[in-house]
Amino acid sequence: MTIKVFGHKSPDTDSTGSPIIWAWYLSEVRGTPATPALLGEPNTEAAFVIEKWGFEKPEIISGLAAGEKVVIVDTNNPAELPENINDADIVQIIDHHKLTGGLETKAPIDITIKPLACTATIMHNLMGPNADKMPDRIKGAMLSCILSDTLEFRSPTTTDQDRELAETLAKELGIDLSAYASEMFEAKSDVSAFSDAELIRMDSKEYEVGGTKFRVSVLETTAPQMVLDRKDSLMASMSDVASEDGVDEVLLFVVDILNEEATLLVPNDLIKGVAEKSFGASVPGDTVVLPGIMSRKKQIIPNLAV
Amino acid sequence: MTIKVFGHKSPDTDSTGSPIIWAWYLSEVRGTPATPALLGEPNTEAAFVIEKWGFEKPEIISGLAAGEKVVIVDTNNPAELPENINDADIVQIIDHHKLTGGLETKAPIDITIKPLACTATIMHNLMGPNADKMPDRIKGAMLSCILSDTLEFRSPTTTDQDRELAETLAKELGIDLSAYASEMFEAKSDVSAFSDAELIRMDSKEYEVGGTKFRVSVLETTAPQMVLDRKDSLMASMSDVASEDGVDEVLLFVVDILNEEATLLVPNDLIKGVAEKSFGASVPGDTVVLPGIMSRKKQIIPNLAV
Repeated sequence: MTIKVFGHKSPDTDSTGSPIIWAWYLSEVRGTPATPALLGEPNTEAAFVIEKWGFEKPEIISGLAAGEKVVIVDTNNPAELPENINDADIVQIIDHHKLTGGLETKAPIDITIKPLACTATIMHNLMGPNADKMPDRIKGAMLSCILSDTLEFRSPTTTDQDRELAETLAKELGIDLSAYASEMFEAKSDVSAFSDAELIRMDSKEYEVGGTKFRVSVLETTAPQMVLDRKDSLMASMSDVASEDGVDEVLLFVVDILNEEATLLVPNDLIKGVAEKSFGASVPGDTVVLPGIMSRKKQIIPNLAV
Repeated sequence: MTIKVFGHKSPDTDSTGSPIIWAWYLSEVRGTPATPALLGEPNTEAAFVIEKWGFEKPEIISGLAAGEKVVIVDTNNPAELPENINDADIVQIIDHHKLTGGLETKAPIDITIKPLACTATIMHNLMGPNADKMPDRIKGAMLSCILSDTLEFRSPTTTDQDRELAETLAKELGIDLSAYASEMFEAKSDVSAFSDAELIRMDSKEYEVGGTKFRVSVLETTAPQMVLDRKDSLMASMSDVASEDGVDEVLLFVVDILNEEATLLVPNDLIKGVAEKSFGASVPGDTVVLPGIMSRKKQIIPNLAV
C-alpha cells in the first residue's frame, strides 16, 4: 500500500515541500512506496516552488480511507488535518510545532518533533548520510522550505542548523540564496487573486486565551501596502469569517518581511486591548505597527493576552 | 534549574533505569544539570537493578512545581504522570508507546518516540558517538532495561536493535547475559511481600474497548505458580480494585516468561467472553492458558474485544 505523506490544511511551502521530500526519501532510499499529498491548494509561494523545481502538483485530498497508511509532517494538530485522521493508520509524524494533544495511534510509531524552524531540516537530520543521495530538485525543495519558514533567517525561530543547511544547499545547487529568497517572497506577496476571506484564512491558526477564541492570521509579505490598501474591506470581512469559523475574533498580522515588523489590524476595542496587553503597544488608530514581530509561534502566541 | 527526568507511575525497570541513564547523559555529556526521579516505589526487579549497579534510589515524587523543567521518558500518557503535568515545563519526551493524546506543551520541544522494545535503546541512538562515554553502571542500567522490556528477547516487541545493543553491552561489561537476566526475573518473581491489590496494580494500564473500561494488568514471572496459588483471593480483590479505580473490569494476565505463555484469570462470564473473542480461547474453568502471549502492547491490547 502506498503511504500518503501530507502536512497541514492551507499548505504553505513547508507543508508542500516536506511531503515531497519525505515521499522521495521513503520511496527512493527506503524502498517504501510513498506519495505526497496536499490538504488544499498550495499558497502562491508553494505553487512557485513546485513550478521552479519541476514537480507535479501533488494530489489534493480531503478525506482518508479507514486504515490508510499516512505520514503526517509539519503539524500534530488534529484541527489542521482531515476530520477522520484518527481512523487512518498513522505510521510516522515529523514536526516542529508544540505538542497539541488529540492525535492518537493504535500502536507505537515513529515520531520526531524538534524545536527547529523547519520540518525539512529535521528530515535532513533523519536521513543521515543518505541525504547525499538527494537529487537537485529535492535539495531545491528543502532549501525553499527553510527560506520560507525562517523568512530568510529573519524569524527568531531560526536555528544554526536551519541556517547552515540552507547555505550548504544553496552552494551545492549553485544558486544565489538571497536572490532566490526574494523570488519566493515576491510570489507569496502577490495576493491580488484572493478574496478578503481567503487572505484571512490563508495562514491562520486557532488559539484560545482567557476564554476568547481567536483565529490568529499572519500574512508574510514584501509588499505590505498591497494588503493594507485593502484594510477596510478586510476588517469588514473579519466578523463574517469569525462567525463562519466559530471563533470570537480574527487577529490579522501583516508581516513585513524586509522591514522585520508586523502591522496588526485593529477593528474594535477588544483587539485594541489585545495589542496593548500582548505587545505593550499604544494604538493610534485602526492599525498598529509592532516592530520586530515576525513569528506567530515564538512572538505572537506566547504573548497573547486579553 | 535542575531538570527532573522520570517515567511512568508504578515504575518498572525501564521507567527506573531510563531516567537514571538520561539524567547522566544530560548532566555529564550535555552539561545540563538533571536528576532522575520516580513516581512511586520501583518494582522488585527495578529495586534489584538499582542495588546491583550501585545507584542510589532516585527521589520519589508525587507532584511538580508549576513551570518546573521535566523530561518524560517511557510514557506519553497523562494518566500515568503527575496530575499537574501540563503545568510543568516539559522540555523533552523519549518514549516507545503509542501516542495517547492529552499531553500538551507551550512551545515546540524535542520528542522522540520509536517502535523499539525499550526506551533505553532509543536513548542509545540519541547519544550517537557519545554513548562511548557511558560508565559501566550506566551500561548496566541500559542492559537491564532492555532485558526487562524484551523478557530476554522473548517478547514480540523485541527488535534487532534492542537485541544487538544488549548483546554488545553484556560483552563490554563482561557478564553472562542469560545468567543476569535470570537474576532479574527472579527478583521480579518474588511477589510474596505484595497484597492482592498491589499485585493487580503493579504493572497495569487502563484501556477502553466497546464502552467497557478495563484495567489490563500483567505479571511477568518465572514462578507463575506462586501467583496462581493466590488465584481465589486475587479474583476476590479484582472487583474492589475495579470500583476503587473507576474501571469496569480487571484483566490479570500472569505471564510465564520461561514457558512463553500467559494465564488469564477468569472470574466472570464477561471476562470469559473477552478471552474467547480476543484470543479465540476456549475457557475450561476460572483460568485459561494463552500460548505465546507475552506482550500487552503487541498481543493483548490490539486484540482486546468484548
